[in-house]
Amino acid sequence: MQHRFLRALRRQPVDATPIWVMRQAGRYLPEYRATRQQAGSFLTLCKTAELACEVTLQPLRRFDLDAAILFSDILTIPDAMGLGLSVVENEGPRFERCIRSAADLGRLGDPDPETELRYVMDAVRLVRRELDNRVPLIGFAGSPWTLATYMVEGSSSKEFTHIKGMLYCTPALLHALLRRLAQSVARYLMAQAAAGAQVLMVFDTWGGMLTPSTYREFSLAYMTEIIATLRQSRVEAPIIVFTKGGGLWLEDIAASGCDAVGIDWTMDLGEARARIGKQVALQGNLDPAVLTATPEVVRREAASVLARYGNGPGHVFNLGHGIQPHADPENLRVLVDSVHELSRAYHRDSN
Amino acid sequence: MQHRFLRALRRQPVDATPIWVMRQAGRYLPEYRATRQQAGSFLTLCKTAELACEVTLQPLRRFDLDAAILFSDILTIPDAMGLGLSVVENEGPRFERCIRSAADLGRLGDPDPETELRYVMDAVRLVRRELDNRVPLIGFAGSPWTLATYMVEGSSSKEFTHIKGMLYCTPALLHALLRRLAQSVARYLMAQAAAGAQVLMVFDTWGGMLTPSTYREFSLAYMTEIIATLRQSRVEAPIIVFTKGGGLWLEDIAASGCDAVGIDWTMDLGEARARIGKQVALQGNLDPAVLTATPEVVRREAASVLARYGNGPGHVFNLGHGIQPHADPENLRVLVDSVHELSRAYHRDSN
Repeated sequence: MQHRFLRALRRQPVDATPIWVMRQAGRYLPEYRATRQQAGSFLTLCKTAELACEVTLQPLRRFDLDAAILFSDILTIPDAMGLGLSVVENEGPRFERCIRSAADLGRLGDPDPETELRYVMDAVRLVRRELDNRVPLIGFAGSPWTLATYMVEGSSSKEFTHIKGMLYCTPALLHALLRRLAQSVARYLMAQAAAGAQVLMVFDTWGGMLTPSTYREFSLAYMTEIIATLRQSRVEAPIIVFTKGGGLWLEDIAASGCDAVGIDWTMDLGEARARIGKQVALQGNLDPAVLTATPEVVRREAASVLARYGNGPGHVFNLGHGIQPHADPENLRVLVDSVHELSRAYHRDSN
Repeated sequence: MQHRFLRALRRQPVDATPIWVMRQAGRYLPEYRATRQQAGSFLTLCKTAELACEVTLQPLRRFDLDAAILFSDILTIPDAMGLGLSVVENEGPRFERCIRSAADLGRLGDPDPETELRYVMDAVRLVRRELDNRVPLIGFAGSPWTLATYMVEGSSSKEFTHIKGMLYCTPALLHALLRRLAQSVARYLMAQAAAGAQVLMVFDTWGGMLTPSTYREFSLAYMTEIIATLRQSRVEAPIIVFTKGGGLWLEDIAASGCDAVGIDWTMDLGEARARIGKQVALQGNLDPAVLTATPEVVRREAASVLARYGNGPGHVFNLGHGIQPHADPENLRVLVDSVHELSRAYHRDSN
């Protein structure tokens, strides 16, 4: 029988609800911090296949997780396009060059995943070999809109001044950038699937900063295009789309052609299911702050999320956003075990 | 005839859609920056009635706005409770002491608005006198939940670690704090109304960080309590509630007893109206980034918001969040004039 994570993404019956958590390979784990220190820099960790493989596998050695997710960064593509990424401790990513004009856009490269991003594909191959089919591996990319926010602002942003200026004043330029990114992201995800990624996820971290109509035009349209390209290329891996803050636009996201929609913690999972759960699987949506509380609270809140989803398949348990660096690893163990144990009651009829 | 702002809040016919903008007295105006410099510090500006009155009136001298909003800070209450507020340039607010235990809570004072917060009431009286009924004056307060986030974290926060820990692990302590705050906020708003504020607004800046059930329990319940207290005390000023990121919970917010709901830019205003526009007026919801674009874009996007709302009364035009410091004041003029001019077509039948 197939892994329960893959079955849940296809809304097929499972014995228990599968669980993985965003940023499960990360700073909350002491062994991650040790490997990160050994690497010297965050980007060296991303760009050295052996080290990326090691941190990808670390959470799976501790917890009974139902999926591995490749350790990497969403900004590998703009970096490979030539913008010169650096990651400053406690400050976040920064590009040497940013995109403000057609000339800037003209200087961008079209990276070939198997050459300029070979380190990612090598990591995928290595992880798959090491996993030996224990659980499926998720490959991922940032959405074109989310990548563009960093490329246009030059770093993390709160108000998105430059890219919103571009969106409202020179939309054709922004569309040209997004089109280039959609092509690159599609090629990148195809290469990850070819290298062995069994599920693909698109992270639209900043789509929620848009208005409903600009979200559809500048973010969702390009994710939809990527999914269509992957399907035309006969990539069969299930595709998960996650727009943080996208709860108001669920129907639109579910119509993108994806197999599953990631839900953040501001939305009631039962309502989300009532709205789109006949079309797609749902992934989410525990408040990440719960993992900084006590084991009793973790178990209670896990039970509550499972109850909100209710009976039957189509649910992948996850946090509503990445696990926080100060989360207690013991709490993640309690979460994973509670979800597996408490969810069985919701799957009795479907088996 | 009454001011169109008051009429719109009561969903009565108007000649044109009224407009004011959040943070209209603020850093984007050179005259504000001059007065701010003269004051020496942000808190001196807030705490000196003559200076607070001056900056409240500045935007009304430039633009044909339909309301004034008192220049003040949402953290005046926790400051008056004894936490020792300071505002560090480019860093935001910081408290000397924060609330982490029942003992901390026990040390909080119960400020009397007409003594410890007299500077606010003096500013309200002064502004009303200076306005001479030209436009109505809005008084305001932070929501109990939003005030509590700063009081528990001690400063601005991204992940709300401490208050969410309190929410999940020691909810009774958090409820005790929120109850105290709800009483103080109600007294504070009543005093503002008595001093002359004609409309009252509750800013729930951080309610959108909660899950649906914790939003209802820890934020909305206390705003509802405040509104009930104001109504029992026969305060007749219309009350506006604004939860940033609250689009998924509109029906709940509209049922709080408020007269109008503020809508951020992530929600389609036409959908909001279809969902709750029969119960309450709606205030919003232009993307604040539009005011950093060109005058042509400002006019086009203003037209789009007006069209989304459609025909008839019950709409107060505003931004979906505060005006940004680098917005061009000329763009605000274009916005105000465009809203007045373009909205007349939507009000013909109702007059």
